[in-house]
Amino acid sequence: MSAIDLNSDLGESFGGYRVGDDAAVLASVSSANVACGFHAGDPLGIRATCRAAVAAGVAIGAHPGYRDLAGFGRRFIDVDPHELTDEVIYQIGALQALARSVGGEVRYVKPHGGLYNAIAVHEGQALAVVRAIREVDERLPLMVLPGSVVERVARDAGLRVVAEAFADRGYLPDGTLVKRGTPGALLDGDAAIAQALRFARGESATAVDGSLLRLTAESICLHGDNREAVRLARRIRGELEHQGVEIRSFV
Amino acid sequence: MSAIDLNSDLGESFGGYRVGDDAAVLASVSSANVACGFHAGDPLGIRATCRAAVAAGVAIGAHPGYRDLAGFGRRFIDVDPHELTDEVIYQIGALQALARSVGGEVRYVKPHGGLYNAIAVHEGQALAVVRAIREVDERLPLMVLPGSVVERVARDAGLRVVAEAFADRGYLPDGTLVKRGTPGALLDGDAAIAQALRFARGESATAVDGSLLRLTAESICLHGDNREAVRLARRIRGELEHQGVEIRSFV
Amino acid sequence: MSAIDLNSDLGESFGGYRVGDDAAVLASVSSANVACGFHAGDPLGIRATCRAAVAAGVAIGAHPGYRDLAGFGRRFIDVDPHELTDEVIYQIGALQALARSVGGEVRYVKPHGGLYNAIAVHEGQALAVVRAIREVDERLPLMVLPGSVVERVARDAGLRVVAEAFADRGYLPDGTLVKRGTPGALLDGDAAIAQALRFARGESATAVDGSLLRLTAESICLHGDNREAVRLARRIRGELEHQGVEIRSFV
Amino acid sequence: MSAIDLNSDLGESFGGYRVGDDAAVLASVSSANVACGFHAGDPLGIRATCRAAVAAGVAIGAHPGYRDLAGFGRRFIDVDPHELTDEVIYQIGALQALARSVGGEVRYVKPHGGLYNAIAVHEGQALAVVRAIREVDERLPLMVLPGSVVERVARDAGLRVVAEAFADRGYLPDGTLVKRGTPGALLDGDAAIAQALRFARGESATAVDGSLLRLTAESICLHGDNREAVRLARRIRGELEHQGVEIRSFV
Repeated sequence: MSAIDLNSDLGESFGGYRVGDDAAVLASVSSANVACGFHAGDPLGIRATCRAAVAAGVAIGAHPGYRDLAGFGRRFIDVDPHELTDEVIYQIGALQALARSVGGEVRYVKPHGGLYNAIAVHEGQALAVVRAIREVDERLPLMVLPGSVVERVARDAGLRVVAEAFADRGYLPDGTLVKRGTPGALLDGDAAIAQALRFARGESATAVDGSLLRLTAESICLHGDNREAVRLARRIRGELEHQGVEIRSFV
Repeated sequence: MSAIDLNSDLGESFGGYRVGDDAAVLASVSSANVACGFHAGDPLGIRATCRAAVAAGVAIGAHPGYRDLAGFGRRFIDVDPHELTDEVIYQIGALQALARSVGGEVRYVKPHGGLYNAIAVHEGQALAVVRAIREVDERLPLMVLPGSVVERVARDAGLRVVAEAFADRGYLPDGTLVKRGTPGALLDGDAAIAQALRFARGESATAVDGSLLRLTAESICLHGDNREAVRLARRIRGELEHQGVEIRSFV
Repeated sequence: MSAIDLNSDLGESFGGYRVGDDAAVLASVSSANVACGFHAGDPLGIRATCRAAVAAGVAIGAHPGYRDLAGFGRRFIDVDPHELTDEVIYQIGALQALARSVGGEVRYVKPHGGLYNAIAVHEGQALAVVRAIREVDERLPLMVLPGSVVERVARDAGLRVVAEAFADRGYLPDGTLVKRGTPGALLDGDAAIAQALRFARGESATAVDGSLLRLTAESICLHGDNREAVRLARRIRGELEHQGVEIRSFV
Repeated sequence: MSAIDLNSDLGESFGGYRVGDDAAVLASVSSANVACGFHAGDPLGIRATCRAAVAAGVAIGAHPGYRDLAGFGRRFIDVDPHELTDEVIYQIGALQALARSVGGEVRYVKPHGGLYNAIAVHEGQALAVVRAIREVDERLPLMVLPGSVVERVARDAGLRVVAEAFADRGYLPDGTLVKRGTPGALLDGDAAIAQALRFARGESATAVDGSLLRLTAESICLHGDNREAVRLARRIRGELEHQGVEIRSFV
């Protein structure tokens, strides 16, 4: 039987600001990328999310980001790599304490948003993140975009890397994502489910030009920031299970 | 031979803003209250302070504060206790990861500034801090003002409490501090050294009205935020050692 | 014909965090208390709200708050009054520039949340807010809770004060609000509409104990932070207009 | 008689964090670039700086920056231009209110640090800043690096641009600065004074390769963030005045 991990971003509420339906998303995924307070999340909400993840049997991952609440961590910041390393250590450590306080444990790391995008190409920042994980716990897997710079430098540093794929995004033949705003960037529900199934079974997905994609993934990223996304996440999980794919964390 | 701990606040720089002479202060104390990023401190500076504390053989303590960089954590904030507990867990966890990454360990907790003052009288916030420590590691001692509400609730909760005294502050007969701005609030260098010696030897210090003070302390708080304070800290340590008092951490 | 102002809080979204349905609320009110970036609001959203308010013919008011995004400005902070004055000037000025850039103008000031509550009783902070308004423009009216400390100090300082009442909150015989969580604190829709009508017509509302309330208000505060609140706001406006009450700003 | 403006960054302290010796710098310059609270500065300190600038007869300029206190606004942030425009309007407006409250007025705009560097090459962000100024007051001059992208787009938009030069930085033949860390990047005191004199007299300065530089400047930027810088600023002003150059604002 084939198996795959499903991951999504959680714990992103901040103070009076609520985002996402963490309870609903937790029912669909096996891994929760939990915000660490720099791009989103506050201690009260982060801990509540950890508690809910523990109760749901979902693996907790650290989701460190740029120190940029105003930008939700989505835009590039030219942070000095030495500083970035320490910021990532800080964020993972904060989440570890909150997770442990509710009987959980940080099991992996997946950088967020702008940082995720940056380390796909920016070697200095990629090394900074890799160094941070090694300083905290070198056994923590790092979730990455396949083919990215960070995948290479993490492997070179001896970290376990977990490649992830996107159910609802179109791919170029070289395995990179079709840029948002261009045709084929976003797949509709049925296409997303079909693509998720191929990834889960280890079959080749199709690039936007019809060519076969050589891309293997241990995890599929789902979104949960609006109702439609939550609904699609539930449909994908349901269909994967219906097709005999086991949904389980990679750790 | 008598022994006493000397503690001071460190790691309070933030980004381009430098405060304190951490290297000089580390030479005078046995315990470093290290800022955790909410009232002061950034990951890069906090980690550098931890590294220096480890090199100096100084115990690292968590110095959590209100989320109030603009106020340096000095003013009361009416934070909900549930939220405060999680904010303190977050801060201790972040510091733990940074301390461990340089071979250190968080050995105790001392709340900062406005929070320190609040939990001396505010039972809800005092309980919130105590709960946070118990959630992280119930063996972590909590440094407190003797006679404070938090001392009582921490003891009741089974935490080890470490009473601290101030070398350079005058005391009222009931063991509370003379309010800043009133006569006798601040002691000059010689008086501060004499008072530190009495605390270190377990002798009674004198209240502002001349009466004897029943106050025992395991640690003496020194300041390091300006040159004169750093000089006084050095003098106090020198004189204590000269008088045969061993300066050592309580952990 | 009687007339009354209806006011509500707007412009509170921040970065990726959306709150409130500003467009819907603007259709129901004559005055918009626009967040100024300290407790909520970012420049992009604040300006968009100003633009929409101008288009809707709704008066723009500054809604300054404590510097406390994590607490949404709802909790008391013991800010030094000198600092508070300058923080309020800063916030009003920022909003003035954004409002003017879209053809609007800041027409009044209504402090937010924890600050609003504090200045009802805390003379130092009340004076700080009054001083800020006088420094910016002494003709700006200040919206206040009737019977509050700030009402008195603002009057003494020569500011125009605008008393506001709450449609959906119960009152004690002395004109203060029934505390949330106690019986009679919140009125249901019909009762809120009835109470709004009495305020609008200058008739006495009834306190929670049935006694008549001597409370006159130039403005009624409506809420818009959830769908039900938005619906109630629309109903109140509709019913007031149906009963011949003109809804118009007090400026 | 020749005349030149001397400008420096001021008002950068934040809460408990003090930087710069504003009083000393104000004695040497004719224009103060006053922080606006995003990269540095808090309302209390900003207003105090405005008050001191008014007393010293020094022109107040807005010094808006990225929303990045942790980075002191020195690193590039890929802010969306629409958002950047509104952030700059916000900052200028806040400073206008504080400046007016002490009898001053914002007379020009000079972006800070990372934003200054970005708009020298990044057309989107350059246009965003130019748009912000036009929205606030199209008569406000914009201080720029000569030859930069922002100089061109500001001119095209009808803004008055004020070219500035650096006394203590070496230049490449094309008028750009020698990069920090490479030989010739920093001039010593005497060379800086000599270069300031040439700029003040409208004479050609010499590039790092000895060639003549075609660079005219209406203002010379001095630094004040450490004692040596403050001393050099005073020497430059003294020598310029001694050589008959009048130090005066360009507005």
